[in-house]
Amino acid sequence: MNTPQADIGLIGLAVMGENLVLNMEERGYTVAVYNRTSSKTDEFLSSKAKRKKIVGGHSLEQFVSLLKKPRKIMFMVKAGSAVDEMIEQLLPYLDKEDIIIDGGNAFFKDTIKRVKYIEEKGLRYIGTGVSGGEEGARHGPSIMPGGSASAWPEVKEIFQAISAKVGTNKDIPCCDWVGPNGAGHYVKMVHNGIEYADMELISESYFLMKKLLGMQPDDIHKIFLEWNKGVLDSYLIKITADILKKRDPHTKKFLIDFILDKAGQKGTGVWTSQNALELGVPIPTLIEATVARSLSALKNERLNATKVLGAPKGIETNISRESFIPLIHNALYTSKILSYAQGFQLLRAASNEYGWDLQYGRIAYLWRGGCIIRAQFLEEIKQAYETKPDLQNLVLAPYFSEALKKYEQDLREVVSTSLRVGIPIPAHCSSLTYYDAYRTAVLSANMIQAQRDYFGAHTYERTDMPGSFHTEWTKE
Amino acid sequence: MNTPQADIGLIGLAVMGENLVLNMEERGYTVAVYNRTSSKTDEFLSSKAKRKKIVGGHSLEQFVSLLKKPRKIMFMVKAGSAVDEMIEQLLPYLDKEDIIIDGGNAFFKDTIKRVKYIEEKGLRYIGTGVSGGEEGARHGPSIMPGGSASAWPEVKEIFQAISAKVGTNKDIPCCDWVGPNGAGHYVKMVHNGIEYADMELISESYFLMKKLLGMQPDDIHKIFLEWNKGVLDSYLIKITADILKKRDPHTKKFLIDFILDKAGQKGTGVWTSQNALELGVPIPTLIEATVARSLSALKNERLNATKVLGAPKGIETNISRESFIPLIHNALYTSKILSYAQGFQLLRAASNEYGWDLQYGRIAYLWRGGCIIRAQFLEEIKQAYETKPDLQNLVLAPYFSEALKKYEQDLREVVSTSLRVGIPIPAHCSSLTYYDAYRTAVLSANMIQAQRDYFGAHTYERTDMPGSFHTEWTKE
Repeated sequence: MNTPQADIGLIGLAVMGENLVLNMEERGYTVAVYNRTSSKTDEFLSSKAKRKKIVGGHSLEQFVSLLKKPRKIMFMVKAGSAVDEMIEQLLPYLDKEDIIIDGGNAFFKDTIKRVKYIEEKGLRYIGTGVSGGEEGARHGPSIMPGGSASAWPEVKEIFQAISAKVGTNKDIPCCDWVGPNGAGHYVKMVHNGIEYADMELISESYFLMKKLLGMQPDDIHKIFLEWNKGVLDSYLIKITADILKKRDPHTKKFLIDFILDKAGQKGTGVWTSQNALELGVPIPTLIEATVARSLSALKNERLNATKVLGAPKGIETNISRESFIPLIHNALYTSKILSYAQGFQLLRAASNEYGWDLQYGRIAYLWRGGCIIRAQFLEEIKQAYETKPDLQNLVLAPYFSEALKKYEQDLREVVSTSLRVGIPIPAHCSSLTYYDAYRTAVLSANMIQAQRDYFGAHTYERTDMPGSFHTEWTKE
Repeated sequence: MNTPQADIGLIGLAVMGENLVLNMEERGYTVAVYNRTSSKTDEFLSSKAKRKKIVGGHSLEQFVSLLKKPRKIMFMVKAGSAVDEMIEQLLPYLDKEDIIIDGGNAFFKDTIKRVKYIEEKGLRYIGTGVSGGEEGARHGPSIMPGGSASAWPEVKEIFQAISAKVGTNKDIPCCDWVGPNGAGHYVKMVHNGIEYADMELISESYFLMKKLLGMQPDDIHKIFLEWNKGVLDSYLIKITADILKKRDPHTKKFLIDFILDKAGQKGTGVWTSQNALELGVPIPTLIEATVARSLSALKNERLNATKVLGAPKGIETNISRESFIPLIHNALYTSKILSYAQGFQLLRAASNEYGWDLQYGRIAYLWRGGCIIRAQFLEEIKQAYETKPDLQNLVLAPYFSEALKKYEQDLREVVSTSLRVGIPIPAHCSSLTYYDAYRTAVLSANMIQAQRDYFGAHTYERTDMPGSFHTEWTKE
């Protein structure tokens, strides 16, 4: 055996794993790699990793022997039982203080269990979100690590070196310690929940321009290009603009018009929604975005329903593009504020529930670069939480409350128009009802409490005196 | 020891348990009772159960000895670990073929596990939904049993005897076998999910009359009383009418105006929403109803937000009560159709997922009487599924599709008006966006698929040819 030389090891050479390895190597680190199928390791070593400070192990034992102590081993394998299996296979070769790092999209409750299990054995465990897709992994992702706090100083340098950088001098890494046990994977989960909402809202804006205003992809492309210069400046707006101008190699027409409208999903939006329901945190925009994907997937049912129920009218003749496009912009912007506000409300509730002491301003900054929802906008969120760390809701921060007050009427106009003509924009709708409900002192829930007390003797509170009350509703 | 004489035993003498026992006894059965706190048993035997065919056990052993074989023991205890504990305490005294019946609101996945566990021991297990509140339990609930099929003939007579009856001659019991393992508890869970939506929709109608039309409780009472004679005829509309005329004994004013608008919940709405997300079934109205309860509970945050963001305008001066109330009626009716349609879509998906072969028409009839959502309306749902058992969605059945086509414009008018003035009616909104999205052939999800392919190489399908495609979006 040679002297251990590798600074970090990575298991799982799919595209994300390979790109992280190349990124680490480029930053000056020696990386050991392992893949269950050895031929994949050999292929990587003899092609992309050739003549680089990358070494491979054909067995786990050999792979581990290549690593400097305390060993740092990062998994980029499929979330779920594959992670537990790999942990068990690896443990016999590891020593106390060694650090296992799960870089996949693990469910945060699994990570909580794994951190406990590994720490009880005297080793350390990090569950980290990594966002940015293939490109991010290669050139600078957003990294959200949580778990065994003592492991952070050991990996900080590598992780921050490979992460995206933001700030005027591009020197602030989009990687910082998030918190104990499952906090890192949780924050990544909420990132994805917000991402679902962001994508759905943008798609709805596109849909309004296409259906309501009858615009062609290249015209809509120009609008998104323009929007990307203002408050909506973000990666998702940029790629939407790119998408809209792309030509289909087969037909030479705009490719977007040939893409089937059945959205896929991989589960993080569902997890975010389910957890918010569990914690009782209203995040209707994020949930509607998840539901919208499920509904879109029922393509055959929809085609059948169109025949029976007819298609919505979908057009309005007296709307001018010039006047309505700015309203769509402002509706998207306010909805975006409201969806991010919901996401941060969820973080706040989870921080209390799981005892994480999350730093919201810092999290906004982790998302400032590298990840899918990266945007100028997150700078304002960071500012809002730095100015007032105990901010009750983002919508109350002056920057956002002013924007909401200024543009809410436009959101209202866009949503009521779309409902009138039958263009479904559920994420915009739920953003608006969230906004109105959240700032309404007296809602309709007094009736629900009365009903619950009527049929189930669940009792109710009163507005004018303390205590719990039950009424015999049917007695005169 | 005496000769066993009791037809059935019941554990847990809270109000639901007591009332079920009295109901069974009234129908001619001898019932044994047990409560963890013995004094509760004695109190019941010496008061409400006095001079009736009700016998009590002070120990589980004594309680079990009172029961005819195969023993039938029904739990009315708190859902969760209390059920497992009671099972373990009881098992040593039971014989093969004996039947344990959980009548609480267990989570259906727990019931699936318990049925398996108990069947492996040679006994039988039923998980049953019981709906109808205190009154239902006493005089005729809706009962939804599932689990060990061989146990059904053993309990059928008692259960159908105590259940609500419907039909012209009041001879059709609202109790029938639902399906294997967790099917009974699942159907009860979805019942509750629909109940959340029904209650929220009614509350929103009330809210519109109160806020938008400035009506007083007694005026709104008259409207609901009227509505209860037509297509909306239902228990929940009836109790809403009752509630609105009730005077507060303290102030002599209308009680509804003194009830705090913070809705409570006990979890079944959350479970329904979470499971629908897991199965990918869009039930946005049911979810928004659950979210609305959570949002209402944030009373202090709302009061704070009102100060910062201002309250929504909430009024429209040019609306006449006479013309708008019928629109609110029709909006409620169409939203109700759409929410029940979503609930039955969820049943259909669960039936496939868990292999239950649910009979939708029969389930509609179980809910026809006894339970909280009982309504004339369910007769039509039963008819729809009996006419076409493989109906793809309730909204496609002629009775419902005609109603939707006739009244959708009214729903549209009500929702767009409410959004314009800032009265949040999220369940109505999501019903409408569900309706429009479900009957739209081409949605906006092509953009989401393009975005997913752009940043994550998730691939997409095309409208004009089969296969999976990936595009290098940034290459010219």
